[in-house]
Amino acid sequence: MRGAVTTLDDLLAPQSIAIVGASEDKRRIGGRPLAHMIEQKFDGPVYPVNAKRDVVQGLDAYPSVADLPTDVDFVLIAVPAKGVGDVVRQAAAKNAKTVLIFSSGFAEVGGDGIAMQEDLQAIASETGVRVIGPNCLGAFNSALNFYPTFTSTIDRATPTPGGISIISQSGAYGSHIYMVSHMRGLGIRYWLTTGNECDVNVSDIIKLYAEDENVHTIAAYAESIKDGPALIDALETARANRKPVIIMKVGRSEVGAAAASSHTASLAGEDRVYDAVFRQYGAYRARSTEEMLDIAYACRPRIYPTGNRVGLVTISGGAGVLMSDAADDYGLDVAPMPDDAQAQMKEILPFAAPRNPVDVTAQFFNDLSLVPRFTKLMLERGNYDGLIGFWTSVAGSPLLAEPLITSLKQAMAEDDDVCFIQSIIAPAEIQAQYEEAGFPCFEDPTRAVAAMSALMRFGMSFGAAAVDRPDIPTAIELPDGALSEGDAVSILVDAGLPMAVGMLATGPGGAELAVEQLGGERFVVKVASEDIQHKTEVGGVRVNVAAGEIAAAYKEVVANAERHAPHADVFGALVVPMAPAGVDCILGAKVDPVFGPVVMFGLGGIFTEVLEDVALRHAPVSVATAHEMINELKGVAVLKGARGADPADFGALAEAISRFSVFAAANAHQIASVEINPLRALPERCLGLDALIVKASGDHVG
Amino acid sequence: MRGAVTTLDDLLAPQSIAIVGASEDKRRIGGRPLAHMIEQKFDGPVYPVNAKRDVVQGLDAYPSVADLPTDVDFVLIAVPAKGVGDVVRQAAAKNAKTVLIFSSGFAEVGGDGIAMQEDLQAIASETGVRVIGPNCLGAFNSALNFYPTFTSTIDRATPTPGGISIISQSGAYGSHIYMVSHMRGLGIRYWLTTGNECDVNVSDIIKLYAEDENVHTIAAYAESIKDGPALIDALETARANRKPVIIMKVGRSEVGAAAASSHTASLAGEDRVYDAVFRQYGAYRARSTEEMLDIAYACRPRIYPTGNRVGLVTISGGAGVLMSDAADDYGLDVAPMPDDAQAQMKEILPFAAPRNPVDVTAQFFNDLSLVPRFTKLMLERGNYDGLIGFWTSVAGSPLLAEPLITSLKQAMAEDDDVCFIQSIIAPAEIQAQYEEAGFPCFEDPTRAVAAMSALMRFGMSFGAAAVDRPDIPTAIELPDGALSEGDAVSILVDAGLPMAVGMLATGPGGAELAVEQLGGERFVVKVASEDIQHKTEVGGVRVNVAAGEIAAAYKEVVANAERHAPHADVFGALVVPMAPAGVDCILGAKVDPVFGPVVMFGLGGIFTEVLEDVALRHAPVSVATAHEMINELKGVAVLKGARGADPADFGALAEAISRFSVFAAANAHQIASVEINPLRALPERCLGLDALIVKASGDHVG
Repeated sequence: MRGAVTTLDDLLAPQSIAIVGASEDKRRIGGRPLAHMIEQKFDGPVYPVNAKRDVVQGLDAYPSVADLPTDVDFVLIAVPAKGVGDVVRQAAAKNAKTVLIFSSGFAEVGGDGIAMQEDLQAIASETGVRVIGPNCLGAFNSALNFYPTFTSTIDRATPTPGGISIISQSGAYGSHIYMVSHMRGLGIRYWLTTGNECDVNVSDIIKLYAEDENVHTIAAYAESIKDGPALIDALETARANRKPVIIMKVGRSEVGAAAASSHTASLAGEDRVYDAVFRQYGAYRARSTEEMLDIAYACRPRIYPTGNRVGLVTISGGAGVLMSDAADDYGLDVAPMPDDAQAQMKEILPFAAPRNPVDVTAQFFNDLSLVPRFTKLMLERGNYDGLIGFWTSVAGSPLLAEPLITSLKQAMAEDDDVCFIQSIIAPAEIQAQYEEAGFPCFEDPTRAVAAMSALMRFGMSFGAAAVDRPDIPTAIELPDGALSEGDAVSILVDAGLPMAVGMLATGPGGAELAVEQLGGERFVVKVASEDIQHKTEVGGVRVNVAAGEIAAAYKEVVANAERHAPHADVFGALVVPMAPAGVDCILGAKVDPVFGPVVMFGLGGIFTEVLEDVALRHAPVSVATAHEMINELKGVAVLKGARGADPADFGALAEAISRFSVFAAANAHQIASVEINPLRALPERCLGLDALIVKASGDHVG
Repeated sequence: MRGAVTTLDDLLAPQSIAIVGASEDKRRIGGRPLAHMIEQKFDGPVYPVNAKRDVVQGLDAYPSVADLPTDVDFVLIAVPAKGVGDVVRQAAAKNAKTVLIFSSGFAEVGGDGIAMQEDLQAIASETGVRVIGPNCLGAFNSALNFYPTFTSTIDRATPTPGGISIISQSGAYGSHIYMVSHMRGLGIRYWLTTGNECDVNVSDIIKLYAEDENVHTIAAYAESIKDGPALIDALETARANRKPVIIMKVGRSEVGAAAASSHTASLAGEDRVYDAVFRQYGAYRARSTEEMLDIAYACRPRIYPTGNRVGLVTISGGAGVLMSDAADDYGLDVAPMPDDAQAQMKEILPFAAPRNPVDVTAQFFNDLSLVPRFTKLMLERGNYDGLIGFWTSVAGSPLLAEPLITSLKQAMAEDDDVCFIQSIIAPAEIQAQYEEAGFPCFEDPTRAVAAMSALMRFGMSFGAAAVDRPDIPTAIELPDGALSEGDAVSILVDAGLPMAVGMLATGPGGAELAVEQLGGERFVVKVASEDIQHKTEVGGVRVNVAAGEIAAAYKEVVANAERHAPHADVFGALVVPMAPAGVDCILGAKVDPVFGPVVMFGLGGIFTEVLEDVALRHAPVSVATAHEMINELKGVAVLKGARGADPADFGALAEAISRFSVFAAANAHQIASVEINPLRALPERCLGLDALIVKASGDHVG
C-alpha cells in the first residue's frame, strides 16, 4: 500500500486523535502533545491512551487503541519501541489514516532496532496506514491547532498560520528552524519532522506541500535523501506549481558527512550530485538557516523576477559599492542605465550617481520626490528584473517612513509585478508598514542582495517550462561478459556519438588493408586484447604512425604485448586514424546510489584530476542543459580558444553530452559507469578517441 | 607638518569647540552637531560661529573664528567650500589642533574642487593643524559626549562607550554601521568618517586606534586606500598590540570598483593585492556588515584561540552536522576526541555521539550535569582551541537558562582562557547573562562558526611574532637602457636565484666552444638581440639541440631572426644547457600603485592564464611565508607529484620566492616588473629558464 495516494489532509488534518502513552505530566513526551492539544483547543475528540489511568489531563483515558469507543484518524505513539508495532496494527484496525511515532530505539540504534523498524514498514505496507517516524519529534498544522509534537517550543512560541511550511529530518534542528521562523514573524502552516523515515520521507512531504494550496514556500532540512527519484518528482511538482523549495542538505563536507552518517546511520551520497540535482530542478540550496529563512521571508510577496538584472538605488554611495560587490558574488547583472536616462537623472539632480547603483544622495532628505522619480526611471528605462533600495535608519524615522513608503508605492504603481526589496533599519511596527506595502525588508544590504538572487533563481526556473529532458529510449542489449574497448566504441556509435572508428587487423597485412580503407595519413595502432587493461604500459600503443610504417607498428605492438603480458589473449591490433590536435575532454556517466544516472563533463588532465572542475547533471539532459554544463566549467576559456587556439565546437560537444546522457539513462539499470576519455574537442566537431563501459555488478537505482 | 605626531586625543578629545556655520535649525547640518553637543552635555565651551546671529541655540555666537575670545582646540566647519580655506587658517591661528570639514564641493566634484582641496592640504602642511574631511559626516568620542557630526543617528541611538571603534570612508554607510552596532548593544568609543581624506586617512586612524588603550577592536570600512605602506604600518601596530582589525574593503568586483571610483574619484587598486595584504598583516576582511559586527562582538571577551581545532557540543545531531560543514568551509579542524575519551562519554551516556561533534542529546533535559562533564572532557582531552555549544531556544527558557549558565561556567572554571561561543535563542535579558559569564552568543550556528574562525585567525596572527620579513638590502645599480634577457639573468643570479646560465656565442664556433664549457648533452639556442621581444615567433629559439648540432642550430636561429626581424640588431645567440622536464612555474613581482612591491607565484600555463591560480604577497616575504604561498595554490597537487610524477622541491621553491621578493623590494623604486618564467620545479631543486626585468618608467610607491 506504500505509495497509495495520500494528501496532506490525510496526514495532518485529522478529525480525531489518540495519544498512546499519554501522561499526566505535561513535561513528559507523552504529556506535552496532549497539553498542546488542550491548550491550543484542537477541535475534535482527543483520546488519551494509558493502561494505568482512567483520566489523563482531565480527559477520559482508554487502556489501548483497541478499546477506543470509535474509529480514530490519527494515532500518536509515545511508548517504548517494542510495543509500537502492536499499537500500529490496532490503529490500522481503527481506520487510522496516520500514525506518528516519537519512540526511539529503532534503526538508529542498530541491532534489533533495525528489525523492529522493518516490521513497522511491513505493517504500513500491509494496512495502508501512513507512518511518520519513528524517532521523530512530531509535526503540526497550525491552522487546525493540531500539535502532535513534544517540542516545548510550542508553549513559548505558538505558531501563526502562514504560507511557509517546514519539513525536517532532524527533530531538534527542525524545532530550532521553527523557533527562528516564529521570532522573525514568519507564519508557518505545516511543520513536520520525519525522524527515521520508515515510511513518510522528506521527498513525500515536499511533494505534498507542493500540491497543497495553503503552502506557498517550502523550507526543507535533510541529512540524507533515501529516494532520489521521488525528490526529483517532488521538486518538479513544486516548480510546476511555482513554489520555491529552499533546502538545507547538510553533510556537505567530509567531516559533516561523517557526523551525519553517525547521526542518521544512512549513507550521505555524493554531495556534488545533490548540488547538481538541486540546481537542475530549481531548488535553492541554502547553507545556513539564516539564509534559508531570509529567502522564505523574501518569497512572501510571491514575486519572482524572471531575469537577473538588478537595479540598486541608495542614499549612500558606499552602500551602492557594497551591494554591487555582493550582486557580482551572486552572479547578478548590475546593468547600467541607458545614457540618456542617466542624463535625465543628472538634470534632476546634478550630484546624483545615475549609472547603477543610482545614488540619490542626502538630497533625498530635502526632496523625497526624488525617490519616485528616480525609481520610475529605473523601472521604465533600466529594464531591471528587480530593485533593491538602501535607506538605512532614515527609513525607520517616524517623520520620514510614511512619506518614503508612499513614494515607493507611487513609483511601483504601474510595476507592482517587479520585486523591490528594501534595506532599512526600522522599529518592528514601521517595518511592518513596508511589508504591508509589498516590500520585503532587510537590515543588512548584503542579505538583501542574497535574497534577491534567490528570488531571481526561482523566477528564472519557474519561467523555464518543465525541465527540458529528452525522451529515454529502450535499453540496448549488452553483449555477455566484460566489454572491450571495441564493444564500447560500437555501442556508443550506435547511440549516435562521434567516436573515432578504427578497424581490427589480425596481421600486418590486415593493418595495411585497414589503412587503405580508412584513408588518411597518420594512425594510432593499439593492441587488441580483452586481457590487457593498460595498453600503453605494455608498449601496446603507437601513435602518429605513417601509413607506410603500419605493418611494422602492428608487429611492434603485438610483440610488446606478448612479451610484457605473456598470458594475455592477443587477437590483433586496432588501427584508428589519428585525430587532429584539440582539447581533450572527459564525458562520463555513473549510477548514483541516490539519484540514478548522472552525467559528468570536464576538461581532461589536471582540470579533472587536480581541480575537480567538472559539471554534473542528473541524466538525461537536453542540448541546452549540456551547453550550461560546458559553460559552468572554470576551464571553459580553454575550449573558447585560450592561448591563441581555435575555439572548440560547443554545439557538437553539447550534442554529444546530451546523446551520451540519454544512453546512460536508458541503460542505468545495467551499467555501473560509461566514459569517453578523451573526447577531443575540435573547431568543427568533437571526436571520442577511447571509451569504456563497465557493467553493473549488482542492483542500482534506475 | 603632515606626519607630525598626533594622538587620538588631539583629534577627538578637545577641551573647546567652535562650530562654523552653526545654525539655529537643529535639522540642518550646521545645527545638528551643536544640538548634539548641547543635548549630550559636552563638557567644555562650545562656540557657535555665525556672521548673522548673536545667539545660536541659546549660546553666544561669534562672527568668525578670528573673533573668538580664546583659543579653541577643535573647529567644525559647515560652510560652503569656497570659504573653508580661510576658516582653516583662522583655526590654526587660534591654535586649533584639528578641524573637521563637512563641506562638500572639493575633489569629489572635480574641476576647481580639486584645487581647493589641494589648498586645504597645503594649509594643513604649513600650519600643522590636522584636517578631517572635507566632505565627511563627522566623528564622535562617546566617552566625552563629543559629537561633531550631522548624522541624525545620534538622536535616535545615543552611543554607549565600549571597546569597539569604527572608522569609515563613507559617511552614510559609516552611520549605518554605527546604527547597526548600537542596535546590537555594542559599545562604540570612537567613530570617525574620513570623507575625501585631504589629510587624515583611514590608515592614520587605524594606527591611532591601535595605539589607544580604550580601543580593543577596530572596525573599518574603506573604498580605497591612498597610502598602502601606512596601512601596513597601522596593521602591524594593531597586531603588535593584539587588537583585531576587521575591515570591509569594498569595490572587490569590477562593477563595485567602477561604482567606488565614481563615488570617491580614486583608483581602487587591484583587489587581490588588498586581499593578500590583509591576510599577510592579520586583518580580517569582512564581506558584509553583519559579518564585521559579528566578529567585533565575538571579540568582546578578548580571547583569541591560537589554533584552529574546534570542539562542537550540541543537543541536536543535525546542528552538529551543520556546524561541521560550516567549520570545514572556514578551514577549521573538527578533530575527533581521543578514543578512550569517547569511550568515557559513552559510559556516561550510551546514546551520546562522542566523536566531535559531541551530541549530549535530549538527555540533557533530564541531567544538566552532562554539560559540564562532557565539556570538561572536551577541554581536557580534545585539546581544542575553541568550543561552540548549540542549545537553541532551550538555553533561553527561564527554567533552564540559569542552571545551564552555571554548568557552562563550572566546565570552564580552569579553562577561562578558552573561547566558548554559544548558539542560543534567548530573550535579551537572558542572553545578557550568558554574555556576562563570558560567552558570546549567536542565534545562528553558522554565524557562530564564522565568528570562531575569525577569532582563531586573530589568535594565530597575534601568536606569530611580528611579520617575519627578511631585511631589504640596498638597491643594485641597473645598467642603462632596456635590459636584455642576459642582463636579467645575471642580475638575478647575483641576487642568489637559481637561473639556468648560458653563454653568449657570436658565431657557430663560439656556440661549439660554449657547449664544451657548459657540458651536458642537450642545449637550447636562443638568438641574442635586444630588439626582439618574442624570440620564438621569429624562429629565434631551438630547443633540445644535441651538442653535435649546435653550430647548425646557431646558424638557423640567427638566419631566422635576420629574415623575420630585418631591422633588429642581432649580436649572436645564447647557448643554455637544456633543463630536465619538470613543472613550470611563474615567479613574478610588480610594483602596486597602493602597496608597492608585490610578489606573485603560480603554476604556468592554464593555471595562471585561465584559472588565475596565483599566490600574492607584499614583498619581501620570508621562506615560511613562501611555503604558505606555494601551499595555497589550488594546483599545488601538481607540485606534489600529481599523475605519478616526482614531487617538486618545495624548499628550493620557497627559497627562490623569498630571495626574489627581497630583490623586488630592494629595487621597487627602479623596476616596474620582474619575472622568472618559467621557473622549473624539479625534484631536488628549481631552475629559472628565462627572465625579464622591466625598468620603472615613472615614479612608484617604494
